[in-house]
Amino acid sequence: MARYKLIIEYDGGPFVGWQFQENGPSVQGALEQAALRFCGESVTAHSAGRTDAGVHALGMVAHIDIEKKTDAFRLREALNFHLKPAPIAVLSAMETDDAFHARFSASRRHYRYRIINRRAPLTIDAGRAWRLSPPIDADAMNEAAQILIGKHDFTTFRASTCQAQTPVKTLSAIKVRRTGDEVCIETSARSFLHHQVRSIAGSLVEVGFGRWSAADFKSAFEARDRSRCAQVAPAEGLYFLKADYD
Amino acid sequence: MARYKLIIEYDGGPFVGWQFQENGPSVQGALEQAALRFCGESVTAHSAGRTDAGVHALGMVAHIDIEKKTDAFRLREALNFHLKPAPIAVLSAMETDDAFHARFSASRRHYRYRIINRRAPLTIDAGRAWRLSPPIDADAMNEAAQILIGKHDFTTFRASTCQAQTPVKTLSAIKVRRTGDEVCIETSARSFLHHQVRSIAGSLVEVGFGRWSAADFKSAFEARDRSRCAQVAPAEGLYFLKADYD
Repeated sequence: MARYKLIIEYDGGPFVGWQFQENGPSVQGALEQAALRFCGESVTAHSAGRTDAGVHALGMVAHIDIEKKTDAFRLREALNFHLKPAPIAVLSAMETDDAFHARFSASRRHYRYRIINRRAPLTIDAGRAWRLSPPIDADAMNEAAQILIGKHDFTTFRASTCQAQTPVKTLSAIKVRRTGDEVCIETSARSFLHHQVRSIAGSLVEVGFGRWSAADFKSAFEARDRSRCAQVAPAEGLYFLKADYD
Repeated sequence: MARYKLIIEYDGGPFVGWQFQENGPSVQGALEQAALRFCGESVTAHSAGRTDAGVHALGMVAHIDIEKKTDAFRLREALNFHLKPAPIAVLSAMETDDAFHARFSASRRHYRYRIINRRAPLTIDAGRAWRLSPPIDADAMNEAAQILIGKHDFTTFRASTCQAQTPVKTLSAIKVRRTGDEVCIETSARSFLHHQVRSIAGSLVEVGFGRWSAADFKSAFEARDRSRCAQVAPAEGLYFLKADYD
């Protein structure tokens, strides 16, 4: 038996999310099916993040255990072959040891939220960003966001269905930057609550519009009250970027 | 009658190209149809570039003449409404005068060719870039490309079906740059021959692979012989970026 660490990119559009579900195609299901076709084994793919329906990944980290003797290069090629035509690609595979766990060993996760700030509909970026018509002030969003850094109770920015044992999380970084029409929110933490990034993005947008002041944002956050969260930003703008391991 | 200058973005994937053709949907056809729905007039859309099937545009410039009294803002909104669900968006519309012609007044066109240099299949960028597995040397490509600058006979890099009166064109700029897995070729000229950018891209890739030296590239170019061109790069990596007007 050998354990392989995989770096995976996917277009979340056609999937019910990372996690296997009965009601539609999942990234996990597609990956496990591809592994089964390659080695005849029913493997379980564990990942650093369980992205929701429609959420993309540029560098999801996962691991699988395989009995069949193979090597990392061949495994990657075989998985990519059997994954076709699903929009999932194994960017890299490397053999690792049993101590590595894609989910439990991850020391930091990084997400990006993409907003295209313009009136015209999206074409090339359709399904790959959140389009917002009214002008948003990225600097104001960035400034307001900084109060999230550190260890806090994130109840306001947590889905009511979130199954984490505690709403307390430690955010390491959050940056909001504009490049032309595009406003990107990038944030990092050891781990995130369900809908945390999308809830933060949606609420920061209120600041960007000027409908909320930085003080309003702070007040909503500190209320620890889910009903104070603004509209949760849609899945299609969210990207799991990468996970760090010590 | 008023003339409107339009800046248009499109995903070229579903189209036979910019130009109206009987055998499938064109960007021009969709735009003219949208204008017809808005104002009841059969307009002709003239563009700075007649992109081929599958070629994208981030800032195509076009103009249309409309009798109906309207304003640029309303025109843009109406065109975008009637263009749905085609992946074409009018980013901006402005009233201009009769002296402006999107094709004949353009003093410079700018194109980008996107290559993703990796073994794994594309997911989020599927249909939006050319994937090449073997490592390519972008610096070597950039160096070799510089001999194209200036006024030359581009017969080697011109489709045999090209209808331009002369193969002589003046290339103002060409740059090849790598950012991570992505290698971008950007080039500008007053005007281009049919398949010129894709022919240059395909031949520069030979230099990138190390199969051609810079001298081989120069020799192929100076031969003014279409048979010396390498594989023409596929349409899906090409983007019409913008056009300049004096």
